[in-house]
Amino acid sequence: KSEYTVTCLAGDGIGPEITDATRGVLDTLTSNSDFTISYRDALIGGAAIDAANDPFPQETYDACVSGDSVLLACIGGYKWDSNPREMRPETGLLKMRSSMNLFANLRPAKAIPQLMDTSTLKPEVLEGTDVMVVRELTGDVYFGQPKGIDVIDGERVGYNNMIYKESEIRRIAKVAFEVASKRSKKICSVDKANVLDVSQLWRDVVHEENKNYPDIEVTDMYVDNAAMQLIRAPTQFDVILTGNIFGDILSDEASMLVGSLGMLPSASISGDGPGVFEPCHGSAPDIAGEDKANPLAMILSAAMMLKYDLDRPKEAQLLEDAVEKTLEAGWRTGDIMQEGGKPVGCKEMGQRVSEEL
Amino acid sequence: KSEYTVTCLAGDGIGPEITDATRGVLDTLTSNSDFTISYRDALIGGAAIDAANDPFPQETYDACVSGDSVLLACIGGYKWDSNPREMRPETGLLKMRSSMNLFANLRPAKAIPQLMDTSTLKPEVLEGTDVMVVRELTGDVYFGQPKGIDVIDGERVGYNNMIYKESEIRRIAKVAFEVASKRSKKICSVDKANVLDVSQLWRDVVHEENKNYPDIEVTDMYVDNAAMQLIRAPTQFDVILTGNIFGDILSDEASMLVGSLGMLPSASISGDGPGVFEPCHGSAPDIAGEDKANPLAMILSAAMMLKYDLDRPKEAQLLEDAVEKTLEAGWRTGDIMQEGGKPVGCKEMGQRVSEEL
Ligand SMILES: CC(C)[C@H](C(=O)O)[C@@H](O)C(=O)O
Ligand SMILES: CC(C)[C@H](C(=O)O)[C@@H](O)C(=O)O
Repeated sequence: KSEYTVTCLAGDGIGPEITDATRGVLDTLTSNSDFTISYRDALIGGAAIDAANDPFPQETYDACVSGDSVLLACIGGYKWDSNPREMRPETGLLKMRSSMNLFANLRPAKAIPQLMDTSTLKPEVLEGTDVMVVRELTGDVYFGQPKGIDVIDGERVGYNNMIYKESEIRRIAKVAFEVASKRSKKICSVDKANVLDVSQLWRDVVHEENKNYPDIEVTDMYVDNAAMQLIRAPTQFDVILTGNIFGDILSDEASMLVGSLGMLPSASISGDGPGVFEPCHGSAPDIAGEDKANPLAMILSAAMMLKYDLDRPKEAQLLEDAVEKTLEAGWRTGDIMQEGGKPVGCKEMGQRVSEEL
Repeated sequence: KSEYTVTCLAGDGIGPEITDATRGVLDTLTSNSDFTISYRDALIGGAAIDAANDPFPQETYDACVSGDSVLLACIGGYKWDSNPREMRPETGLLKMRSSMNLFANLRPAKAIPQLMDTSTLKPEVLEGTDVMVVRELTGDVYFGQPKGIDVIDGERVGYNNMIYKESEIRRIAKVAFEVASKRSKKICSVDKANVLDVSQLWRDVVHEENKNYPDIEVTDMYVDNAAMQLIRAPTQFDVILTGNIFGDILSDEASMLVGSLGMLPSASISGDGPGVFEPCHGSAPDIAGEDKANPLAMILSAAMMLKYDLDRPKEAQLLEDAVEKTLEAGWRTGDIMQEGGKPVGCKEMGQRVSEEL
């Protein structure tokens, strides 16, 4: 295939500017390659609430599933924070994940030599850190039924069901095994099996599935210990396989191993349709429109898109190399500024990456 | 009151040796004071499974609730790891918490100047860190019903209910407000209200209760962000108020701010009966019986017991000061060893603290 269609969801806050920067870089990349990408824009999050009274409108869904892949910037902002749940930007994200069946979330956290000293961890601890969190994204307490807030015996009771089916665990485990087979063949599966039945099933199914991947070594770790070990000795981890809520917590924690959330891409992958590629950071409404945002996490997300959805691993690598060279050359947005760094805005950062391509 | 009865649960692994060291220190303390403590021993965890086929036997419960307070060392070990759930050491701990109504778990994490460089975080980040995690301990997905593993439509499904009643949230919030009123009057309440109904209720009730403590400032934070902020800028926190599972994860993560789990005490407090005071670390079966364990976390837990259950704040302070002076003098067990540190075993560490008293 040489012509791809990518749906762009610019979302809120700094979303539009980092999307522009990313598309600029992709344009440079494709102009030197044997394939083209055509874009169409669609609304999500606060922007969609304002325009269409729905944080993930049907139109957006249709655009997403009929293209080859989806690039998402970021969503949310103070403006919609006190809306009822169904009118919140985050609800749009959850609707997207669920309706597009994006069950596998991949979040790499690799210490970047040039940025090592922006982390609050000691460089000697970070040295060599290269973690891939494989987080289940469409199950768990995020989507479990029953849920709600009821009045029982005269007082309110809030509840959400933490639930996993064997088949849900098995399919995310398979993804982790495949990912691990291309890395160091080690998986740490994180759960709370000493307390939770749902974790006991998780653990059992992961080990059953391990029999189909005999060359992969699986160890288990309790989530509280994992939260500690990630800071104590991050290099002990390679692939971390975990459920939706534990993955939410641990992948954000792991992001601190890289120094800035502004550097972290993610991929959300479906079994069948297109995936969604997005930076891990939020919409930073406080600096929106000021050309201060760091577009590198979204540019690196585009690299993941090239690799996973467009089957262009070579171009993905080119893009990652260009980002590395840009950092090597000293260009820095505010969030990753260091002594001696050369300050640039969002737009110029994109141009610098394009030049390195 | 001048005569107290304390139930000692030595548990498994290094439990007996750190209990001995702690009792030795308490003996020195009481011999210089106007009160006495008499001890009785009871079984919990693996030791109780082996002796009585129950990780928290009725006898132990009776001993605990009829005394003034409970000192617990640590439980668990490889030996019982593959037992069915009801025959695991952890299950004894959960039975204890639930049957003794220990709904409030207090875990201080204060950077210790003498040990600053044993942490993997940079000293300038840790400087001034003083966090108190107030974790709800008898509710949430830990104890929620329904739970289990069923076969539905031909496949296994595991589930646990993440559930909180208004009254449960209110009583732990009150504890946090009381704790905060003796500290910097700031609470960060951690939840996942952008996704979970149970968290929405949590947030609502905490803010309702805030009206009864108008001088305390409450901010809210999502748990994923909290996991990140704890490492990014720990000094922003004072009291962290959160539920059982998020508290489990965050308090273990916070322990890394202190360098070693071997330094961290905890208090589990009941509304009515005696509380349980225990170190945060595990039973370290690999070094059990070798006189290598660090007894300081249990000694600091005894200080919390003096303060919260025996109403002896002055003696609690004496004990804490003695631990600090012992560290100041350079005495170190293996887990907190530093360049220039003077190596001691478990027993001698206890004696050194006694000498400082
Ligand atoms: C915004 C929120 C619903 C979301 C989540 O909890 O999954 C976010 O934290 C993430 O990790 O992508
Ligand atoms: C051993 C386990 C059941 C326990 C918990 O999860 O509460 C432990 O991790 C703790 O924090 O005291």
